[in-house]
Amino acid sequence: MNLALTWGMKKRYLLGGLLPVLAAGLLAATSPATVLTKVRQYRQRHEHELLADYTQLLAIPNVAADTAGQRRTARTIADMMRHRGIGQVQLLPAATPGVAPAVYGEVRVPDATRTLVFYAHYDGQPVNPAQWAPGLSPFVPTLASGSLASGGKLLPQPAPGTPLNPDWRIYARGSSDDKAGVMAIISGYQALAQSGVKPTANLKFFFEGEEEAGSPHLGELLARHRDLLKADLWLICDGPVHQSGRKQVVFGARGDVNVALTVYGPRRPLHSGHYGNWAPNPAMALARLLGSMKDSTGRVTVAGFYDDVVPLTASEQSALARIPNIDDDIRRELGFARADGQGQSLSELINQPSLNINGMRSANVGPQAANVIPTTAEAVLDLRLVLGNDYQRQIAKVVRHIQRQGFFVTHAEPTDAERARYPHLVRVVPATGYNAQRTPMDLPLARQVVQAVQTTVAQPVVLLPTSGGSLPLYVFKEVLNTPTITVPVANYDNNQHAENENIRLGNLWDGLETMAAIMTMP
Amino acid sequence: MNLALTWGMKKRYLLGGLLPVLAAGLLAATSPATVLTKVRQYRQRHEHELLADYTQLLAIPNVAADTAGQRRTARTIADMMRHRGIGQVQLLPAATPGVAPAVYGEVRVPDATRTLVFYAHYDGQPVNPAQWAPGLSPFVPTLASGSLASGGKLLPQPAPGTPLNPDWRIYARGSSDDKAGVMAIISGYQALAQSGVKPTANLKFFFEGEEEAGSPHLGELLARHRDLLKADLWLICDGPVHQSGRKQVVFGARGDVNVALTVYGPRRPLHSGHYGNWAPNPAMALARLLGSMKDSTGRVTVAGFYDDVVPLTASEQSALARIPNIDDDIRRELGFARADGQGQSLSELINQPSLNINGMRSANVGPQAANVIPTTAEAVLDLRLVLGNDYQRQIAKVVRHIQRQGFFVTHAEPTDAERARYPHLVRVVPATGYNAQRTPMDLPLARQVVQAVQTTVAQPVVLLPTSGGSLPLYVFKEVLNTPTITVPVANYDNNQHAENENIRLGNLWDGLETMAAIMTMP
Repeated sequence: MNLALTWGMKKRYLLGGLLPVLAAGLLAATSPATVLTKVRQYRQRHEHELLADYTQLLAIPNVAADTAGQRRTARTIADMMRHRGIGQVQLLPAATPGVAPAVYGEVRVPDATRTLVFYAHYDGQPVNPAQWAPGLSPFVPTLASGSLASGGKLLPQPAPGTPLNPDWRIYARGSSDDKAGVMAIISGYQALAQSGVKPTANLKFFFEGEEEAGSPHLGELLARHRDLLKADLWLICDGPVHQSGRKQVVFGARGDVNVALTVYGPRRPLHSGHYGNWAPNPAMALARLLGSMKDSTGRVTVAGFYDDVVPLTASEQSALARIPNIDDDIRRELGFARADGQGQSLSELINQPSLNINGMRSANVGPQAANVIPTTAEAVLDLRLVLGNDYQRQIAKVVRHIQRQGFFVTHAEPTDAERARYPHLVRVVPATGYNAQRTPMDLPLARQVVQAVQTTVAQPVVLLPTSGGSLPLYVFKEVLNTPTITVPVANYDNNQHAENENIRLGNLWDGLETMAAIMTMP
Repeated sequence: MNLALTWGMKKRYLLGGLLPVLAAGLLAATSPATVLTKVRQYRQRHEHELLADYTQLLAIPNVAADTAGQRRTARTIADMMRHRGIGQVQLLPAATPGVAPAVYGEVRVPDATRTLVFYAHYDGQPVNPAQWAPGLSPFVPTLASGSLASGGKLLPQPAPGTPLNPDWRIYARGSSDDKAGVMAIISGYQALAQSGVKPTANLKFFFEGEEEAGSPHLGELLARHRDLLKADLWLICDGPVHQSGRKQVVFGARGDVNVALTVYGPRRPLHSGHYGNWAPNPAMALARLLGSMKDSTGRVTVAGFYDDVVPLTASEQSALARIPNIDDDIRRELGFARADGQGQSLSELINQPSLNINGMRSANVGPQAANVIPTTAEAVLDLRLVLGNDYQRQIAKVVRHIQRQGFFVTHAEPTDAERARYPHLVRVVPATGYNAQRTPMDLPLARQVVQAVQTTVAQPVVLLPTSGGSLPLYVFKEVLNTPTITVPVANYDNNQHAENENIRLGNLWDGLETMAAIMTMP
């Protein structure tokens, strides 16, 4: 079922148009348990409308290459905020022209002594529609009875009034990463406002449009709108909850940088019979190069790769020890026999820098494969960084490793003279990257956020010193000197960054409750 | 310029409709020098029409996946043969339904004591139009002032009557491999017939439609039409002339078999941050596997890979020594600093078995690259075989090598149990392959063919014991017990099997002369 095309947006469940200051001022302070009950009841009464709203948002393309789609996404979010009674809604431009704007809004609360900024990003990872499952298309939000990978089936449109099963999934690019963050935040606020519950802090909203591109203009945006964005804490809503299904609060994120490699072979593709054995094959050269970067246990063999890492503090180590170890369960579900990392747990390993091959390509495979010696072979590396790593230093280590394998490294298409001189040629093009960041777990506001999230669930909230995924948290620290705490909402098996991205409906609903709890924490 | 769309086929230069026996019987025997003069004059007077004919043929898709295009190609060739006065034109079906038919025709010559079959194939390698240069499309034949790789420019339609520069190129899939063979053969005959020159042998024509797919039904076709195909020699027109530009006669061809490899990672694509370091990356596993197959000089490290090779005879070694060594020139033109093979020449190396990576792919690179751990990584290997190698034995050696690298080898999608048990899983799917074949250089008919080709050029004809490329020559030997000799026509820099395939016009014209000389050899 194509949700976007068959459902209209139904706004009758929104009062809309209330002045935010007035709205907030009229509301009465409420206990966490009451907040939870009211938010949940509001959501249960309006889940069809919330789903229709979200479907409309997911149907708008949000990839970097589609500038018009990005703008439309931003404008739609701004409209949704206005309809929810959020004030000062505006698109914040960067100084650099052509940059996807951030969407901003705020709710002023009289007598509030602190200000929280809720952050999510509305852009999504690039898509290759051909790789999505039959019946799915990245920007045609589609409902399924569960994860398609575990036997879920595509669903027809649910009749109005029928309850929505929280285990259902919505398939679309950005459904988890990170329009789910946008939706949980603005609809969490909506549930409060419509239930007559008053936030306990001034709320600001900031939705970025370039996170998946490495947030190249986030620093510029924050600096330019420094006064508007003054706050005590940035609350980041991005990433998945713990694989056990338990909610988690994350105090940091790995840094990240991509590096594109292109190895060069003959100037034109050659017949593999007439020249095979003689003309060097760039795919083989790339395979040998990549193969030299890790040992058989997955440990990176690049010299100095694990240097510079700042050790975990005592409270971070203790939090790490309390994280449920469900590695074997995930491994079985993912269908592989042995994890990398010489027996260390997933939680331990994401506190180390990593090197991953995002993709690799030379000529063609499958029905398009031909008997050729390709002209080039490409790979994209993804380097994740932990506290202490510097992304440029990390790239330099990889470049030195490549040179030690006998490659001449260039940053441009090789010249004729370089081709004539160097038997092994590789073009190395690093993307924009950023470093890791960690907020101390002992910070009073951090403890309050953990408590607020804990009021919404019975099971202990998982505390993660560092997320395996990356967010440009260092920018908030560097530019605004404001701490960040990340509270994710998506299911862990959401296929984010890949084909068949999805969100479990129950995770979206839980997200509303989590965000509302933080907005009303004592 | 789009030749196919702007030019009609002009058949007025063909008499057409002559009974072939009558036509052949009326013609008078002629000296090689006179034949050459007449064929050249005929071509010079009709080159615009010949080009229009060829353009029409090139505009028809001829890839295996396009059954309708293949049938249309076969029917068009049959029509072109009939218009040239060739008799008994028919499509020869295989016993297996759905197989692309061979196109057959013949010219009976009274008193001829021998019969030659002229072979070419009309199917082409798969195409990925996106990889072709701007302005080119595989089935929109397009003229250029020279090789685009060396600064050639696309050309407007030449005005009728203006001479065609022999250095011009036609860009299209199959332009060299191997519709050029079809065109050289039927138009070589046409030039003879229209110039009143009588062939000295009975001529048969056999144009295959599955060569690029590994000729899986050629044996079946030959066996089924054994009586029709009786002959003293198969004359194979396929492949390029020598890189020096000199014509060559080739006495054998390497065998060939492709092997597709798929290495498995997690069952669904994972976020490279949340799981990188822990979930095994199939691209890395494939890179390590492929990298283990060759050493840094390009020598294959698979155990026993170079065993079984039948040594060259004295005359083959002597022919090899006389081949002009222009390796440094080609290397410079192709833009790489060092060839594989520890200093052996290209001519020497194609007399050895080879292992080439045709293509390699895991997830995406470039703008579509995303931060994921891919689910699979694929490669296609191309194994070339020389006399003595058996393709199934050669595959078995590669499989044993893969197993020795710690992989469990399966031929199907891995089961859940296999995923749970084996840390390294690879699916190995060999395609249909065939072995190498060599015709002795001392065979009397072989010497006559060499002499005939030599009458058309001043420079010594290059004699090649084995072509680097492959042709299913073993089938002719095994099924019909008939020797084969290969006389190629295409320019060596034709990009056959790849994007931007092209033929140099002069090579097509030379091909007419070569084929006509063989048809009239004393």
